[in-house]
This record gives sequence, C-alpha cells and structure tokens, in this order.
Amino acid sequence: MDPRVDEHARTIVEHCLDVQAGDEVVIAAPPEAQDLVVALHEHLGKRDAFPFHIGRFQGGPANRAFLRRLDPDAFEHTPGVLEAVADEVDCSIAIQATSNTHEVGDVSPGAQAAFQRLFEPVRDAIMEKRWVGTQYPASGNAQAAEMSTEAYADFVYDAVNKDWAAQREFQENLVEILDDASQIHIVSGDTTDVSMSVDGMHAVNDDGTVNLPGGEVFTAPVVDSVTGEVYFDMPVMWRGAEIEGVRLVFEDGEVVEHAAEKNEDMLTGMLDVDEQATRVGELGFGMNRDITQFTNNMLFDEKMGDTIHLALGHAYEETVGADREQNKSALHMDMIVDMSEDSYVEVDGEVIQRNGTFVFEDGFDEQA
Amino acid sequence: MDPRVDEHARTIVEHCLDVQAGDEVVIAAPPEAQDLVVALHEHLGKRDAFPFHIGRFQGGPANRAFLRRLDPDAFEHTPGVLEAVADEVDCSIAIQATSNTHEVGDVSPGAQAAFQRLFEPVRDAIMEKRWVGTQYPASGNAQAAEMSTEAYADFVYDAVNKDWAAQREFQENLVEILDDASQIHIVSGDTTDVSMSVDGMHAVNDDGTVNLPGGEVFTAPVVDSVTGEVYFDMPVMWRGAEIEGVRLVFEDGEVVEHAAEKNEDMLTGMLDVDEQATRVGELGFGMNRDITQFTNNMLFDEKMGDTIHLALGHAYEETVGADREQNKSALHMDMIVDMSEDSYVEVDGEVIQRNGTFVFEDGFDEQA
Repeated sequence: MDPRVDEHARTIVEHCLDVQAGDEVVIAAPPEAQDLVVALHEHLGKRDAFPFHIGRFQGGPANRAFLRRLDPDAFEHTPGVLEAVADEVDCSIAIQATSNTHEVGDVSPGAQAAFQRLFEPVRDAIMEKRWVGTQYPASGNAQAAEMSTEAYADFVYDAVNKDWAAQREFQENLVEILDDASQIHIVSGDTTDVSMSVDGMHAVNDDGTVNLPGGEVFTAPVVDSVTGEVYFDMPVMWRGAEIEGVRLVFEDGEVVEHAAEKNEDMLTGMLDVDEQATRVGELGFGMNRDITQFTNNMLFDEKMGDTIHLALGHAYEETVGADREQNKSALHMDMIVDMSEDSYVEVDGEVIQRNGTFVFEDGFDEQA
Repeated sequence: MDPRVDEHARTIVEHCLDVQAGDEVVIAAPPEAQDLVVALHEHLGKRDAFPFHIGRFQGGPANRAFLRRLDPDAFEHTPGVLEAVADEVDCSIAIQATSNTHEVGDVSPGAQAAFQRLFEPVRDAIMEKRWVGTQYPASGNAQAAEMSTEAYADFVYDAVNKDWAAQREFQENLVEILDDASQIHIVSGDTTDVSMSVDGMHAVNDDGTVNLPGGEVFTAPVVDSVTGEVYFDMPVMWRGAEIEGVRLVFEDGEVVEHAAEKNEDMLTGMLDVDEQATRVGELGFGMNRDITQFTNNMLFDEKMGDTIHLALGHAYEETVGADREQNKSALHMDMIVDMSEDSYVEVDGEVIQRNGTFVFEDGFDEQA
C-alpha cells in the first residue's frame, strides 16, 4: 500500500476523530476509495474501534440507478435504518471519490431534491458528533482537476498529510480578528462589493479535523445583514452539472437577483431548494497555502490561499452565537471569490487582507 | 451492463424477496460486486424501496486489516449499530464476491472466532426476516473454481437465472418423502455410513428464495440421533483455509472422532467454535441439475445433483419441529458427500436415492 494512504488513514483516526476504544465508526465510501477504506480498518482496529462501512449516498452509478427509477414522492420520511445508524454511531468518516464527476448528471433535479431532503435529519445528527469529510484521489476527481491521476494523488496527499498544529497556529491570527469583528466589507475588482455583519457570531479554526484537508477560518453572517453583489470566479458543481460565472445580488440577507454564464437554470433550481437556500450560511477564508491550484473540488478550493467563499444555505451551529438565528437549509453550497488581485477585505473599517495577503503575514502592504 | 446482471438483480428483488414499496433493504456487498449493486439499486428504485449498501464483514482486505489489529477481547457485545440495522431493515441481500478466497488466511482463528460471535444476534435477527445470499462472478471465485472469469460468469448465471417454479415442482417430490420420514440411512462407498432421525422435523423446498442459486431440499436431524461415520469428498473453506478429506464419527448426535487430510488443526478449531458446533444442524439434498461441476463454493456445490450435505452447527428454525430442540451455534458449516457412485439413501427402510438418482426421476433402478 502507498504509505501516504496509511498516513491519511492515521490522520483521520488520530487527528480528526481521536477515536476511542469501543467507538462505532461509520465509513461512507464508494468502491473507488477501497485502499483508504482498508487502511482505515487497520487504524480503527489498532484503537479497538468498530468500523461500519457503508456506500455513499451522493453521486456514483448506484445512486444514479436508484434515483432514476424511484418515485420522488415514495418516501415521506427519512428511512428508519438511516436514523438508527446516525443515532448509534460515535463518529463518521465521509470519503469523496469518483471515476466520473458527472455520473448523476442525467438524474432529474426533482428526484435529487426529494432524496436530499430525506437526509437532512441524518446529516444534522451526524454533525452533532465527531465527523470528518475527506478525499481519495480517484481518476474522475483527477480529471475534473485537469491533472493525471498520479499528479493529483501528489496534490491530495500534500494537502492532507501535513503539520496541522502549525496550520492551527497560523489561522488563530484571523480567528482573533473575526471574533472581535462586527462589520465586514469585501471588494474584488468591479464585480464584487458585499457587506455583512458577523456581530455575535463565532469564528472557527478549521485545522483539518472536520474537513481533511482543512485550512480555513469560517464564520456565519447575521442572517439579514448581507447586502451587495458578488461574482464567483470558480464554477460550482451541483447535481452533476457545472454552474459557471455565478453573480448574486443580496438585499437584507436574501438573493434578489441571480445570473450564471452557464447552467443558469441549475442555479435557479439550487436557490429553490428551500426558503433558506437564498441566504448566506457561511463566510470563509481559505488559508491552506499547500493548496496551490484550483481543482474544481470545493473541499480543496475553499481552503486555497487568496480566496474567500460564501455558502448559500445551511449555517454550521458552532458559528452561530447563542442569541443569533441559525440559517437552516437542505443546501450548503460554497462558492468562491478569487481575492489574489485588485481585492481587499475590511473589518470595521480596517483593511485586514489585501490581494490575498493577511495583515499578519509578510508581504502585506496596506497602502498598495 | 451485462443483461444477465440485470436479470440476476430482478430475480433477487422480485422472486427472492418480493420487495414492497417502502421496504428498507440492506445490500451487503464487497467492491468486486459493484455491477450487481448498481443493478439492485435500479430494481429497488422501481419498487420504491430504499437500498442501504454496506460492506461485507467476512473475507476481503478490509476485514483482514481490522481483525489483524483488533484486540480479540475488545468487544464484549455486538456493536449497537449492527443491532440497530438488523432491527430496522425489512430484508437483506448478502452478495459473495472476492478477488482472493484466501484473503483472511493470515488472520488468527481466535480473532475470527471472537468477531463471529459478535455477529450471532445480528444473523439471527436478519434471518427472521426476508433475506437472500447470492454470488457475483468475481475473479477469485473463478480461480477457486479453476475456471476463467468469463466461463465462471456463464456458470453462475446459468445457475441463478432459471425457471424457479419448475425447480420448485421437481423438489416437492422429495419434500413429501422427507416430511413423512422418520429414519434416514446414508451409505456411500466404504467411507460413509450414517443414520439419523428426522421425525417431527420439517423439510424445506429451497426454490432460490433464500439462496440464489437455490436447488436443494433440506431438513434438520433430531439433535442426538446422528450415529455413524461420514467422509466428505469436497474440501471445506473455513477462515481462508481449505480443509480437505474430512472424516467425522458421530455418537448420540455428537462428533466423537475427527480427522482431515489437510489442515486438521483448522477442523479442530471449527469444532471448538462452541459446544453445538459438534452437532449436525442440517441434512440437505442437492437437486439443481444446472450446476454440473464442483466450484469450491458451498453456495453452488451443495445444490449440485448427486450430492448430499450435512452442516455442523446451527439449525435453521424453519426446519425444526415445534416440540424439537433447535441446535443453536455460531457455526453453520456445510460439508458435501458425493453420492454419484456406489451410494444410496434409505428412508424408513426404503431406498429413495441410488447413485444420485431419486426414486421419482427417470433412471432410478432400485435393484441396481
């Protein structure tokens, strides 16, 4: 076995989840990720924990075959077996890997939406416990990244097998700024100029425990505070389709105008998932400087340095202050703004990032 | 997709399980069987049932990696997640498929035994509902059969995709004989001469609903009635090892002597699984004449014409009369006697099978 796969599994079991003896651990993984599934079984065995391997419910030919045949109204409630698993397990590992990122591209959006709603209670229950989402370098993901499978594997393992304590320390600088912040103003070129309040919200230091790779600091805006317009530089993958050139206009926290250069109808469908899908659930800053290129994969792209991202839909509970509203939605769709050129972020009137570089990093020049 | 895979999936969903709308269906399958998993998702979708795909717990590199690291005493109780799944689901599909039948050959028998005990309550709960065990033609199974993978696929699909109503009718002849029977006497060559009572027990017509392929009639002996000696012609696969040339001597229903020409220590370990592992839980007659050769795979071998089999260990509940003891064991190990030559079976003093041919088949000659 590739020793990097072993190291990846060790990082998941020890660093991300700190698995204890007797823990029951779900591993949700497609066949493409079998090497990592095997390595996880070894590391869970070492800790006397019980691995429970299940298939992935998103993407892949099995999910496609099911959703194309299913009557979208067939299930009114979440299947009991899913609720039972979510109740019983102590922690969860979700592994992305596919040989074709467009595998569910010919499933009707209605069927996908109906199925996604069934999973909401399960997702919420899983996320209240220890969990981590990660990536295995499968051929389809390499193709989406426009890389050979071997070069993509190098990219993935550079990003996931790293010194997470050092990364945490670096990111803590931004956490301190955001935890004291109220008003945020983000400008990039002529196309993005958006403001929001994070007053009373919490900034989270993602040091690779819930996402592997980690490498971001994220918080949630006050729900009705988002105002202005944003152009997203990177395409968004949703239900097997690439939505490119997304532009959103916000008023009082809600999307009031939307457009896309490609697959605008998919964007419209995304905003229709539920009422809360038109609101922003997350503001994040990418800070993993070992991720040096976009790969059309949000797990990595949102962590890349010189970027910020907004997520439409669900807000993570840990980012929402006790007296603040949590935006709850079936959707959580991260979308990225490139901040590397002609861009800045102000916090309560002070510039804290310019052209991607933070005030606490070498090379920051407020007058530039 | 190979249309035979689609037909196999349809047979499982419609004939074996008669899946209903709203059913929650476990599919336990290794990565090798992914084509069949996809086809099952399609047929379960057609019936508006929910597929829940989990990994296999026996054999395979993940199970091996786990069991080699696990402290065998780590789990005192069945993991809660397994009990919860067994409680919640309506029916189960277990798919065998491997790229190496010896994959768990270097796992200690102690670790395997400890793990197997954890599964007993789950197996019992699953078997009280609708369930089916079947085979996908993977390369390791083809190798064990000493066949090319393509020729093995032909063999598998000939055996599973057939007219099960006609098979049921053929087998009903033997069910009628056994249901009225008391004493059974089985003789083959100089090496097998064993008697047992089936008085008050029930004969089951396996028409491919719980095993696919099916094609046997089976019952259980009265627990303490088995007396005599048996030589088993086909090797037994247990925990990654082939046990060959097994000879057992029974007195008052228990194994009092055992020997094997190869891996006798594994046989000894098998008999040590628990106290009930030394008793016979099943007597079966192979009747699927589309299975024309041994393939070192009990799912098929035990259904082959001209054979009988005894299983050490667990007796299936449906074969045990209301006032009879059910042998309950963590083991259920079928072992085969070739009855094609120099052999006969007597039921209450009358010969009902000679050299593999039944009294109700053409070619039977009681005087031969």
